[in-house]
Amino acid sequence: MQTFFQYNWMIREEWYKWCEEVPLEELLKVRTGGVGGILHTLFHIIDVEWSWIRLMQGKPDFKESFDDYQSLERVKELDVLFKKEVEEFVLSWNPQMEHNEVRETSQDGIVEIFTCGEIMRHVIAHEIHHIGQLSVWSRELGKKPVSANLIGKGLTT
Amino acid sequence: MQTFFQYNWMIREEWYKWCEEVPLEELLKVRTGGVGGILHTLFHIIDVEWSWIRLMQGKPDFKESFDDYQSLERVKELDVLFKKEVEEFVLSWNPQMEHNEVRETSQDGIVEIFTCGEIMRHVIAHEIHHIGQLSVWSRELGKKPVSANLIGKGLTT
Repeated sequence: MQTFFQYNWMIREEWYKWCEEVPLEELLKVRTGGVGGILHTLFHIIDVEWSWIRLMQGKPDFKESFDDYQSLERVKELDVLFKKEVEEFVLSWNPQMEHNEVRETSQDGIVEIFTCGEIMRHVIAHEIHHIGQLSVWSRELGKKPVSANLIGKGLTT
Repeated sequence: MQTFFQYNWMIREEWYKWCEEVPLEELLKVRTGGVGGILHTLFHIIDVEWSWIRLMQGKPDFKESFDDYQSLERVKELDVLFKKEVEEFVLSWNPQMEHNEVRETSQDGIVEIFTCGEIMRHVIAHEIHHIGQLSVWSRELGKKPVSANLIGKGLTT
């Protein structure tokens, strides 16, 4: 489980580097698909990862607004801030936590019960999926996207 | 590990259903990013998944050409054919196989050594990444993409 998180964090850092070579205007531009933009996607990934980790710990969530994170620096700052807590939880993960149950109340008041195992996998898949969207927008910009390869990165358990 | 494969197979089936409502011309249309098209992406996912599973079993690979799979039915047939072998391997996966080493010779003759653990995760991430690309193209077509949610699908170990 940890390996996938390491992979996602590594890829995210590479996308930040990629972003450094792209004008802010392009990073903020509203695009078709996903949450609608490059920087917005990175912000969304960070927010969602942190929110689920908080939920599993029984800690309160709060909704950050992308309006307050309109630069690469601001998004990276948020990442550093949230990552500390996320990393601590991920590194303490063990298979005994797999079936721990978590209640989630949706915006329309419906209560759902998830296991921590499925939440962890959901968070992992969530980032990879959104990174796939970045890769299309990257090509639309005429730029080579960050490689999504997991092999060859020394990511062994 | 198996849970992620189950997730990917489930999502893939949902994309096949999505494809049924889209003209073949749109499924074959060359697009920006990834391998360059919707049906081509699904073909690529199937091919890559199967090829890595074959490699881990020490079985010979062969390169299918997308030119021979220019319809949804043909791609689904290939999936059924390959899936049998892939599923057998995935369901027999156990953590003792994590550090088994596999040699891969690249097209330019370079030999690389990967562990089965990193290959399995690479195959998982590979599909999720490409499905993210489909979701952008889906919106470009004005269609709602298949949800990438892993939670709420009963995918617990």
